[in-house]
Amino acid sequence: MSTATPIQAYAAYEHFVVSSPSPFVAHVEINRPRKLNAFSRPMWLEFGRIFTQLSADEDVRVVVLSGAGDRAFTSGLDVQAAAEDGMLTAKEGDDVAKKAKGMRSHIEEFQECVSAAEKCEKPIICVLHGISIGLAIDLSCCADIRICASNTRFAVKEVDIGLAADIGTLARLPKIVGSTSWVKDVCLSARDFSAQEAAAVGFVSQVHGSKELALQAALALAASISEKSPVAVQGTKELLNYGRDHDVAESLRYTRVWNAAALQGKDFGQAIMSGLTKTKPRFEKL
Amino acid sequence: MSTATPIQAYAAYEHFVVSSPSPFVAHVEINRPRKLNAFSRPMWLEFGRIFTQLSADEDVRVVVLSGAGDRAFTSGLDVQAAAEDGMLTAKEGDDVAKKAKGMRSHIEEFQECVSAAEKCEKPIICVLHGISIGLAIDLSCCADIRICASNTRFAVKEVDIGLAADIGTLARLPKIVGSTSWVKDVCLSARDFSAQEAAAVGFVSQVHGSKELALQAALALAASISEKSPVAVQGTKELLNYGRDHDVAESLRYTRVWNAAALQGKDFGQAIMSGLTKTKPRFEKL
Amino acid sequence: MSTATPIQAYAAYEHFVVSSPSPFVAHVEINRPRKLNAFSRPMWLEFGRIFTQLSADEDVRVVVLSGAGDRAFTSGLDVQAAAEDGMLTAKEGDDVAKKAKGMRSHIEEFQECVSAAEKCEKPIICVLHGISIGLAIDLSCCADIRICASNTRFAVKEVDIGLAADIGTLARLPKIVGSTSWVKDVCLSARDFSAQEAAAVGFVSQVHGSKELALQAALALAASISEKSPVAVQGTKELLNYGRDHDVAESLRYTRVWNAAALQGKDFGQAIMSGLTKTKPRFEKL
Amino acid sequence: MSTATPIQAYAAYEHFVVSSPSPFVAHVEINRPRKLNAFSRPMWLEFGRIFTQLSADEDVRVVVLSGAGDRAFTSGLDVQAAAEDGMLTAKEGDDVAKKAKGMRSHIEEFQECVSAAEKCEKPIICVLHGISIGLAIDLSCCADIRICASNTRFAVKEVDIGLAADIGTLARLPKIVGSTSWVKDVCLSARDFSAQEAAAVGFVSQVHGSKELALQAALALAASISEKSPVAVQGTKELLNYGRDHDVAESLRYTRVWNAAALQGKDFGQAIMSGLTKTKPRFEKL
Amino acid sequence: MSTATPIQAYAAYEHFVVSSPSPFVAHVEINRPRKLNAFSRPMWLEFGRIFTQLSADEDVRVVVLSGAGDRAFTSGLDVQAAAEDGMLTAKEGDDVAKKAKGMRSHIEEFQECVSAAEKCEKPIICVLHGISIGLAIDLSCCADIRICASNTRFAVKEVDIGLAADIGTLARLPKIVGSTSWVKDVCLSARDFSAQEAAAVGFVSQVHGSKELALQAALALAASISEKSPVAVQGTKELLNYGRDHDVAESLRYTRVWNAAALQGKDFGQAIMSGLTKTKPRFEKL
Amino acid sequence: MSTATPIQAYAAYEHFVVSSPSPFVAHVEINRPRKLNAFSRPMWLEFGRIFTQLSADEDVRVVVLSGAGDRAFTSGLDVQAAAEDGMLTAKEGDDVAKKAKGMRSHIEEFQECVSAAEKCEKPIICVLHGISIGLAIDLSCCADIRICASNTRFAVKEVDIGLAADIGTLARLPKIVGSTSWVKDVCLSARDFSAQEAAAVGFVSQVHGSKELALQAALALAASISEKSPVAVQGTKELLNYGRDHDVAESLRYTRVWNAAALQGKDFGQAIMSGLTKTKPRFEKL
Repeated sequence: MSTATPIQAYAAYEHFVVSSPSPFVAHVEINRPRKLNAFSRPMWLEFGRIFTQLSADEDVRVVVLSGAGDRAFTSGLDVQAAAEDGMLTAKEGDDVAKKAKGMRSHIEEFQECVSAAEKCEKPIICVLHGISIGLAIDLSCCADIRICASNTRFAVKEVDIGLAADIGTLARLPKIVGSTSWVKDVCLSARDFSAQEAAAVGFVSQVHGSKELALQAALALAASISEKSPVAVQGTKELLNYGRDHDVAESLRYTRVWNAAALQGKDFGQAIMSGLTKTKPRFEKL
Repeated sequence: MSTATPIQAYAAYEHFVVSSPSPFVAHVEINRPRKLNAFSRPMWLEFGRIFTQLSADEDVRVVVLSGAGDRAFTSGLDVQAAAEDGMLTAKEGDDVAKKAKGMRSHIEEFQECVSAAEKCEKPIICVLHGISIGLAIDLSCCADIRICASNTRFAVKEVDIGLAADIGTLARLPKIVGSTSWVKDVCLSARDFSAQEAAAVGFVSQVHGSKELALQAALALAASISEKSPVAVQGTKELLNYGRDHDVAESLRYTRVWNAAALQGKDFGQAIMSGLTKTKPRFEKL
Repeated sequence: MSTATPIQAYAAYEHFVVSSPSPFVAHVEINRPRKLNAFSRPMWLEFGRIFTQLSADEDVRVVVLSGAGDRAFTSGLDVQAAAEDGMLTAKEGDDVAKKAKGMRSHIEEFQECVSAAEKCEKPIICVLHGISIGLAIDLSCCADIRICASNTRFAVKEVDIGLAADIGTLARLPKIVGSTSWVKDVCLSARDFSAQEAAAVGFVSQVHGSKELALQAALALAASISEKSPVAVQGTKELLNYGRDHDVAESLRYTRVWNAAALQGKDFGQAIMSGLTKTKPRFEKL
Repeated sequence: MSTATPIQAYAAYEHFVVSSPSPFVAHVEINRPRKLNAFSRPMWLEFGRIFTQLSADEDVRVVVLSGAGDRAFTSGLDVQAAAEDGMLTAKEGDDVAKKAKGMRSHIEEFQECVSAAEKCEKPIICVLHGISIGLAIDLSCCADIRICASNTRFAVKEVDIGLAADIGTLARLPKIVGSTSWVKDVCLSARDFSAQEAAAVGFVSQVHGSKELALQAALALAASISEKSPVAVQGTKELLNYGRDHDVAESLRYTRVWNAAALQGKDFGQAIMSGLTKTKPRFEKL
Repeated sequence: MSTATPIQAYAAYEHFVVSSPSPFVAHVEINRPRKLNAFSRPMWLEFGRIFTQLSADEDVRVVVLSGAGDRAFTSGLDVQAAAEDGMLTAKEGDDVAKKAKGMRSHIEEFQECVSAAEKCEKPIICVLHGISIGLAIDLSCCADIRICASNTRFAVKEVDIGLAADIGTLARLPKIVGSTSWVKDVCLSARDFSAQEAAAVGFVSQVHGSKELALQAALALAASISEKSPVAVQGTKELLNYGRDHDVAESLRYTRVWNAAALQGKDFGQAIMSGLTKTKPRFEKL
Repeated sequence: MSTATPIQAYAAYEHFVVSSPSPFVAHVEINRPRKLNAFSRPMWLEFGRIFTQLSADEDVRVVVLSGAGDRAFTSGLDVQAAAEDGMLTAKEGDDVAKKAKGMRSHIEEFQECVSAAEKCEKPIICVLHGISIGLAIDLSCCADIRICASNTRFAVKEVDIGLAADIGTLARLPKIVGSTSWVKDVCLSARDFSAQEAAAVGFVSQVHGSKELALQAALALAASISEKSPVAVQGTKELLNYGRDHDVAESLRYTRVWNAAALQGKDFGQAIMSGLTKTKPRFEKL
């Protein structure tokens, strides 16, 4: 568990600990280590709410996401809990069209909770370690930067439980790494891949010898970003995400309109001035 | 030539041998080794028909594509045959607009035959070896996973015969590997690149010491995928291909509608149950 | 400075030297070495005009872009000049909506000048060395192929001066390299990255021991491309750029229409014939 | 006010009365007649919640939306309330970039509440009468079918209060009627237009002599639709809305996937059978 | 039945008569009047083949499509035949995912046959009369120009047989007429609409007193278009269809590439010259 | 000719008279009445420059475009001049690919000049009268509002001179009026259509008894718009044009970012205040 003080405003969440390891940095820890941090429905609903709250929280500029315990970032969906909730088995005799409507709505709810991390306006650094399969990939694909421990065991596991992954991996993974041949290999075979392989294909950008070292590196990177202009940082996240889904001409147009307001903020002048005077700028809350 | 028994339903094809090395796996071999497996028009018409048939064939769950003979996967277009068919030389005096219409129609036919592999609903593993230039790149870009022998000599050769590649390489290659600088280098210079280089940029995901070893690896991977739920596997291929051409929000929406039917199939429950009982599931034909 | 003879038609430009190191190759050198090749507004206006002119110049088939002097490809925006021009500081009391309009228009002008390189119909090989930060990334993202010296120090520096990069880096960089985790890391942290790192992620496709060697390699590659059919080469650039911004079906359709005219040119037959007769083709100006 | 019995599940809403004039039909009435049904922030938050609830309510198959009182469907934004909430006036001295962030977020909240009507899976018939300006157009653009009284006074009023309409009118109106020349005329001039003009350009599809007659016609149409298969009706709304935002090939593809589940429901067979036996079908809840 | 001589090349079709009422004009008649021209599967397969053949037939420049007999253009799907073919009823006990795959494939085949009319490179003028419901709307939406008799009874009938229309109406109708309120009204209510209403909303562009007069007008218009440059006419159809599915900048770009070949044809000069010399041009086959 | 005083800043244009009939209104008159206002290349180059200048001119808030003389708004391309310039006839023996490149470039230049009107940030009201064919349609499609005299004779004339219209009509007309059947009729037949027909389909929004009356109505409308907030008016044009080319979700997102700056301008508060105090607001230059 994180040693930093929990942030009061997030104390009511049951399955996550949110603490502040340094100014303007929030550390979100998935906190169900006895169950390998597997996700039940209440957990993903909380996950969505936390990131929506972080997005609007002016005391937070960067977020680090990790999993409690030694064994797993997360082992994915808590299949047993899902089975007990009746999510996996439609009742006999139900109408196919009616069940289809229910499933669309159920998948959408799940997708939106996970996507809340992508929509969060602050950069998210995800630290993976140990078992990191199934939903672990969906979640980490919504982070901006991925760092992992050398013992991480990754897998896009869904075909092995009889379904095409539907919470985001198939939509996002091919846009996150360069080799489609590799993406299709791991998604179709459901095989494990290692931290080294994840780094080689660009899925993670750093590998460290242990979870602790990986987390430490993430917190250091987070601290460094938290000292920069939040107008610049949050604009950069927005424009990179926009760019992923639009062509270049569209992106340039949107960028112009975005920066027409952003550049009128004080951060810009202050950062310029600090550069010229070689002093450290301090940016106001956004 | 493949040692597996040819599949009867594909026996009539002249230029390809289609055999079944293991249950639910089809092995398609380009079979014109004396001509370095170069493609004439009848060949690409057959190519299109074969993959359309494989797509609908419920006895096939995975396809391996390779070239017969030691020397080449394929040396590309059979230029001599094309010249004799009059495809390369428009008649003097013909009207430019009329010739343009003929060429559009001719290129479209060729593109559609090759795209049949991409549209085939079953995963395709392509094994390349030896000479693999020009059309070899177009074809293999339509496969899902690429594996090659260490002796493979690749080249996007088209500029050297005076044209911008128009059968798919320029549309697909940049979406298959990560480095645009590399893509433009090989497409503009038409230079050879090796198996090692292909692996480094992510064009292929495995390199093996010989064609035989590469093929063996492909067949093993195919066999492994063929034992998984076809609903999950074919859904995964569909959603990954959809994702390549759509933004994330679009993909998530399409995924919900797709899985609303897929998750009502029996494969899902069966795979879950097998996971819990540690038994090997057997999936029905799709 | 380049040792090749300056091309007369470009002699009037103040901040750039344009010379011809070999037939059909133009070498554009950013020529303000005392200021680390930093860009003032007159410079980017010239930059735009030069590439628009090169695009239409039938004596040019390939362009090499580099920076004069030992120390920098370019250190980016000339902040001091920009400050003196009043570009960085809006006047107090001005109306926010009015300033927003002015900024949109100002950014658009800058974007269009830089985009002129991308729109130039001839391939551009960019040679980077030394300090290559901020605008250096925007510029080089518009080139087709990037080559660098081993001493290059790269950085997407904009967040450190308080803004989200708005001249193209955020729109283009994620489409140029494969790893989004890496892109977001360097864009959010503004940290330096080395030539080796740039090669590993695919941002550059060659690293050489010095600026001279890098330039030499670029000129050799340019010379090789300049001997190929300009119809084929320019079509390849157009179709690859089109492909980046369109899905595969769209690209194939556009390709058919494009090649319906291109294949009626003489280059195609000539290249085919040269291939058959093992002679070196000579292509007419385009 | 509506004479039908209020539906218990919606009784807690303060500013709207939701009643059930006939089986499976919900009638939503904007209920602030003394203020010409002008919208304060609590009202649009309620509006969003009501339509989200209606979307999931299996007892509702069609919705009719109208405004209480004789004088107005709605006069739009309650400017006075907005002024008091500080929504219209940014505090002096605030940072422009910070205010821009606040405004984006504020507009997004408002847009999403209004868009809830468009996203509601049940068809919505909007009945307009009297003053119907500003927000009235935004709201009614999210309905599927528009019917009005002959005394309706329409206006896209926003330019007259100094802003470009940002809650949906400019995005949706041009896709709802055919003549762009007319759309730009009314949006740029902010002039009134009559029921007759609205019918002539296709904005409304029926005009009736009074609010009562218009409402009666809407309820009759709603009743008629409510007797049809909800699978067919809701699928039709979904596919028409999808079609507005996608090209034809995309729409056909999505349609196939959608109907692959929908056609397996019982409604299809039942409707066919009823057609052959000339009996009235009864469809189960969806 | 048409009085013009059947064209030999289309004589083998069973359910359609294809004749040539004037040079370069083909008249396709749906020929199953005893069954109100209802479509069975063999008919729509033929329909697809005919329009694919017409598209490539250089003796045809314009096509007129109508229905034989006095009573109906077409009453739509032949429900009885579909029921006998088992297309409407999935077998009990079949797997939902497997049935979904079958249905997707079945709908796609049907969609593609109908879309063949849209893809036909020659303009199609559709003449509707009498009963014109269900599939009649799907078919006529693929024509370029719609003309009808005053006795035509139109309806988008699908919701009344329990499904959302999936052969094209919902994708195309909103792009063919201006008023979305009207489109949703007729699609959700399945009500009849008259020739006058069809003309008022722009679905048809001419109404004539009888089927004969409507057909006569269509043939006259076809004859007039058939005398114009086929390069110009077919380019116009292509560019208008392209424009429907693309934004303006995309359309302008595609147009440039298209006309770069088309304007080099002889038709252009010949038409110009005829204009100057006031003579009637004669255009060669395309 | 216009009776208003010519504006000095536009006095150097040869083929157009630009005057100011009322504050903040510019009237652009095509001024080559002896040639029916037919366009030669120098004219369309001027046309592009004028609208680019108007877009940036803070003394102009609305533009009216009309044609000098009694007989024609414009008869379109000056075919004779084009022939003399060699634009219509490619030289014999030229390479097809080379000519294609030249034509693409030539068409692009022409398209961009005409598109300058669409890109102009101020609303444009186009007044048509008399002969208004060919290019007249391309030009007027770039205006925001179209008004015409009852004697106007319209035609999309291009197929009659052997080409598919390539300067914008085919890309824009279908997005301007509702009935595709009508659009294809007039584009394929090249037939004349009257002012009444243009009004009925929504191409123009007002018809007046004479050119003078039409112009008078346009000037009055222009004057009325010119008194409104330029921030609101120009934002409305931008957002409506953006909306035409994007789906609703995209438009709403862009709108939020646009208005986040616009609403911080003074116009908004001033307009609100004027509304409350019933006084006439005066807006500063933008």
